[in-house]
This record gives sequence, structure tokens and C-alpha cells, in this order.
Amino acid sequence: MTVYIAFFCTGLRERKGAFFMSENEKKPYVTYGSCGCGTCGATKEITGCRFSLSPMTDQFVDIILDSIGKVDTSKVWKATDKLSTVYRGKRNHVLDAVKACFVRSWREGVHMTMEATISRGCPGDRDADYFLSEDDVLLNEPQIQDIHFPVDCKFALYPMGVENYMEYIAHVVNLAIDRNVYDKSSHYASFLKGDVQDLFRYFDEATEYCDKNIKHYIMEITFSVNSPTAE
Amino acid sequence: MTVYIAFFCTGLRERKGAFFMSENEKKPYVTYGSCGCGTCGATKEITGCRFSLSPMTDQFVDIILDSIGKVDTSKVWKATDKLSTVYRGKRNHVLDAVKACFVRSWREGVHMTMEATISRGCPGDRDADYFLSEDDVLLNEPQIQDIHFPVDCKFALYPMGVENYMEYIAHVVNLAIDRNVYDKSSHYASFLKGDVQDLFRYFDEATEYCDKNIKHYIMEITFSVNSPTAE
Repeated sequence: MTVYIAFFCTGLRERKGAFFMSENEKKPYVTYGSCGCGTCGATKEITGCRFSLSPMTDQFVDIILDSIGKVDTSKVWKATDKLSTVYRGKRNHVLDAVKACFVRSWREGVHMTMEATISRGCPGDRDADYFLSEDDVLLNEPQIQDIHFPVDCKFALYPMGVENYMEYIAHVVNLAIDRNVYDKSSHYASFLKGDVQDLFRYFDEATEYCDKNIKHYIMEITFSVNSPTAE
Repeated sequence: MTVYIAFFCTGLRERKGAFFMSENEKKPYVTYGSCGCGTCGATKEITGCRFSLSPMTDQFVDIILDSIGKVDTSKVWKATDKLSTVYRGKRNHVLDAVKACFVRSWREGVHMTMEATISRGCPGDRDADYFLSEDDVLLNEPQIQDIHFPVDCKFALYPMGVENYMEYIAHVVNLAIDRNVYDKSSHYASFLKGDVQDLFRYFDEATEYCDKNIKHYIMEITFSVNSPTAE
């Protein structure tokens, strides 16, 4: 029997056999069979980012559509749904596109947040919905590299499938200290602060470290600009 | 030597000895010593939720302050910073307060998201910044249990420190199918859909399962109401 199974990290996936259902209910339950960290998953080096912009203004629709439209996405796979946009591809091109979208959505005096989930290595992932460019020439960076504004940020790293995950987290937090973007740690998140260019340079370096050292990781980041809340 | 070390999951923590710095740089690097999943951490059963409301309207400040002010937080510890609010305490009281804040921030026709990180069992957590009520009498539920509106939602579960984390994820996703709030799975998230009461009932049940079965877990949820985006 071949059935279509909804997969947690990566949408629908066809799998033979590893499907279960109770006798009474024919519900399309999910299962991941024997997939664990470092097994199954995509064989290509696909990094993904699911993100949502939230401009807190009556003009939020215009800002979101305008910024997303200005991004050169020729080197990433993309999809937009009711809650967010997803880019998938080579890590540097995904980050380039996400950065461009964020930079282009900044408006003077408008409070906005961007929630972003960066992920790579999920056992439920597969070799689909991606575009892997052969080169490393960034398409958006030349147009946005001279745009500067201050950003507040919180993030958390989740290295999956290993007991010593705190070591990886410490490394990434300490990298933020080294790069002078670290602000403080608090419950469930670390806080960063700095110019938009410095922050994205840091996340480029941090995710490069994760790519090299962690089989499956998720990084949850929230960027915030123009908050009316005082320090 | 006693030093203060910034901790990833839980703010500042004093620790003796387990501190490192290079010879040249005296930077306040973080370290978690030998802490791993299921070791160190708080001894109390503290669940926490860090959340941010994003009403996409010029009136966002009024809505956020109004809704946060309407929550009875007598049974949780709370703190608000520039990016979010944190409640900590017994799981049921934390969820009761978060639900109240979300329900009270709904406005007819106003698109709003709430990003919430629920966490329990971090090795970096400690027995501080919490309030554990002795009883289970919910303070907000009686006032909000009859308020209904449709919600779109995405969430992801991260069971830490174990190789077989996909099994726990599958269980929680299948629970959503059983409770008729499951919509679909996509890259990096599962999507739910339903009345606000049904969704929070589901998350109550899902986090109860996680509490009982996973030493350290994080659940990332984004709720969305009144989105102008069509299906």
C-alpha cells in the first residue's frame, strides 16, 4: 500500500508501508517510521527559512507585498502561505533573500518584527522544493549592503538529537559576544542588538558553524525595529 | 572564583568555577559546564511561555497594553521586555494567562499574530522567577471560555536531548488530527485551524503529554487572526 503521509518538517511525503491507523478510524495519521537524527532526510544540502513580517501599521499589506516583491529570489525555492513565506536552497542564498526582505520592509518610525525559523537536517526533509545554485554570487547583497538601521533581536538555537546540545548553544552565544552583537540572555532566548548589517553577518557565521557541526538544527529568530518600548 | 554567567534558557546564573576565557580577552563568555538534557536545571516543575503580540494596526500599542492589563496574573511570575512578555509557573496557569492575553487582544477585522515559545526542562533553567500555585483553579478561564473566533496557527515541537524525537512529534501532530484542529503539514511547521477554544484545549493536552514524556521540550507556536490573505 502506498499512502501519502503529512510530514512535520517538510510537507507531504510518499512512503511505503510505514503507516498506521486504528481499526475504527481511518485518519491520515503521520508517522516517521524509524527516522531519527542524521537518518532519512534530504541528501542535498538544503537550508530553509520560514519567516513572517509583522509591520504594526494600517499599511501592513503594502509593506509586506512591496518588500517581498523587491527580493531577487532567482537562487532560492519559494512559497508563501497564509502565515509565512518559505525560502529553500543553499544557505548563503537563503540568508541573502531573507535579509533583503527584512531590509526592504523597514519604514521610518514603523514598528515591525520579523519572525524567522532557519532549519537544516530534519529527518523528515526530502530532496524536493529547493533550488541549489552552483555559485555563491549573492544576488541581493550588492543592493542592500549599505543600508543601515538599528535592530533588536532575540534568538534560540535547538541542536536536535544530541545530549550535549548546550555546548553548541554556548558556542553560538559566545560567537555573538565576540562579534559585539550580544546584549543579554533571558528566559528562553538570547538577546542581540546592533546594526542590521552586523546582525546578519553574525547569523551567516552562526549558521555556517551549525551547518558544519550539527546534523539537524533549528534557529528561531525574531528581529524588531522601531519599537516604542523604552530600554 | 565566582562569576556571573549569562544562561541561554534562563537569564543570569551564578556558578562557581565552570568559566572560561582566553588569555587575551576578558569577555563574559557563557558556559553550561557539563549540563546536559535531564541534568542541572530547575528542580521545580516550572513551565514558561515567552510571547509577543503583533496587532497590525496603527493602534497596536493600545491593544497590547489593554490585553496584557486584563490578564489575571496572580498565579504566574511575569516580566515584560522590549520584545516580549514571559509568564512562568505551573503549566495550567501559564497557559490560562497566555490564552487570556490572546483572547483579550482580538479586535474585529484587525489582523494580529501572537508568537509564543512554551518551554520546560531546560538544563540552564533554575528555581527562580516563578510562582507555583498550590491549586489548579484557573483565574482567567471563567471569563473567556465563551468567547469564540477562528484562528490559523502554525507550530513546531522540539524534544531535546533524544535521538528519537520524531516519535514525540508524530504523537503530538496525531493528537491534533484526533482533536480535529489539524490543517496540514508544511516545511518546518504543522498548521492548525479552528476555534480559539479548541486550539487552546489542544495545546493544553499536547503540553501535558510533553510534560509527562519529554525531559526538555520547546514548542514554538504562531497564532494568527483576521488575516487578509485568502486560503
